[in-house]
Amino acid sequence: MTGISITPLHGIPEVRPGDDLGALIAVAAGSQPLDDGDVLVVAQKVVSKAEGRIIPGNDRRAAALSESVRVLRRQHEMIISETTHGFVCANAGVDASNVAGDNVVLLPLDPDLSARRLRAKLRNLLGVEVAVIVSDTFGRAWRLGQTNVAIGVAGLEPFIDYRGTTDTEGRDLSATRICIADELAGAAEMVMGKTTGNCAAIVRGAPAIRGRGAATEIARPPSEDLFR
Amino acid sequence: MTGISITPLHGIPEVRPGDDLGALIAVAAGSQPLDDGDVLVVAQKVVSKAEGRIIPGNDRRAAALSESVRVLRRQHEMIISETTHGFVCANAGVDASNVAGDNVVLLPLDPDLSARRLRAKLRNLLGVEVAVIVSDTFGRAWRLGQTNVAIGVAGLEPFIDYRGTTDTEGRDLSATRICIADELAGAAEMVMGKTTGNCAAIVRGAPAIRGRGAATEIARPPSEDLFR
Repeated sequence: MTGISITPLHGIPEVRPGDDLGALIAVAAGSQPLDDGDVLVVAQKVVSKAEGRIIPGNDRRAAALSESVRVLRRQHEMIISETTHGFVCANAGVDASNVAGDNVVLLPLDPDLSARRLRAKLRNLLGVEVAVIVSDTFGRAWRLGQTNVAIGVAGLEPFIDYRGTTDTEGRDLSATRICIADELAGAAEMVMGKTTGNCAAIVRGAPAIRGRGAATEIARPPSEDLFR
Repeated sequence: MTGISITPLHGIPEVRPGDDLGALIAVAAGSQPLDDGDVLVVAQKVVSKAEGRIIPGNDRRAAALSESVRVLRRQHEMIISETTHGFVCANAGVDASNVAGDNVVLLPLDPDLSARRLRAKLRNLLGVEVAVIVSDTFGRAWRLGQTNVAIGVAGLEPFIDYRGTTDTEGRDLSATRICIADELAGAAEMVMGKTTGNCAAIVRGAPAIRGRGAATEIARPPSEDLFR
């Protein structure tokens, strides 16, 4: 096994509402070619900008509430809520960083659809079969700091399922189902620095399973949630 | 920026109690040299085995309880608890997979110390300054599937702290503190397949900050936990 490489995709300009993000990525990929089987990880922020998911930011709290179906906790300025997509995160992903003016950016309406559209666009423009992950930065219940996770997925299965397989000793790995989509998103974050404006990365050589999965599969249903 | 590479470290034999894991890694690194600044990620399982953290597994539940300071939830055979280290996970990390016979493996008593010892051993044997992460596979409150996270850290800061810095628009990135240690652990998991017996990986080119941090800093204190 030769390992995995993670490379920032340079050359994507500032993205504005209505921009064809797939075309911008295709141009950027001219100098860093994409290969079949690569995983392209794109920051939610630019996906949302291209889709026009920007509103005036003078009431960020109201925006977060309108993007939520259920508030789990409130603390000072922050809410932790379940978004319309089923994700649990701070302020429903409504974010004011890296946005021009007094605006805030909302999560894409359907990040899985965003990922599928980017994947189709790159297939059409470049003739490559890549997987696409739309990533965002989420906190965790019991661990400090944030990591990037997958909120949209296209062309891969979000999980590698070891349930029913056996380990090197022949024992059942019954509890293990790795969320490879989140590991890919977190790995790509390391080259998508918050302050550098880098908004996409190419992961090559990962054991991602091609498929038709969706990031909404990762959201734990409230009925299975012990901590909501 | 040239990006990040993640390479499995092959050639570590089956680890037994009392084995000098650092020496085994140093031998394996003969054919895949470690460089200053690399991050070596080692699976908890082999660290625990080398440290003799193996007990007869006929009462896994009792073992998990004895490794816990507080049980948060019980469901069927599983408990979710706070371990003696402060981590919240299933069954206190007590695991029966990839273990010979009717035994279970406990987490290291002090995984940060385990990481520091490995780091010192590799400095002594190979003359390299690497960071070391001891990783384990944890579930998440609101997301299905597991990812690898850092339970022990040596030679790096677990967080990249953007609080007080500004983004490309000059706005405060006040909420953002990336847990790079967990992103590194998750990235390395992708080459440490559950069924292949690969127990270590080398991450090169990551923006990890050299330092004297510890993984216990990642555990959210109960006083700051909204979901315990």
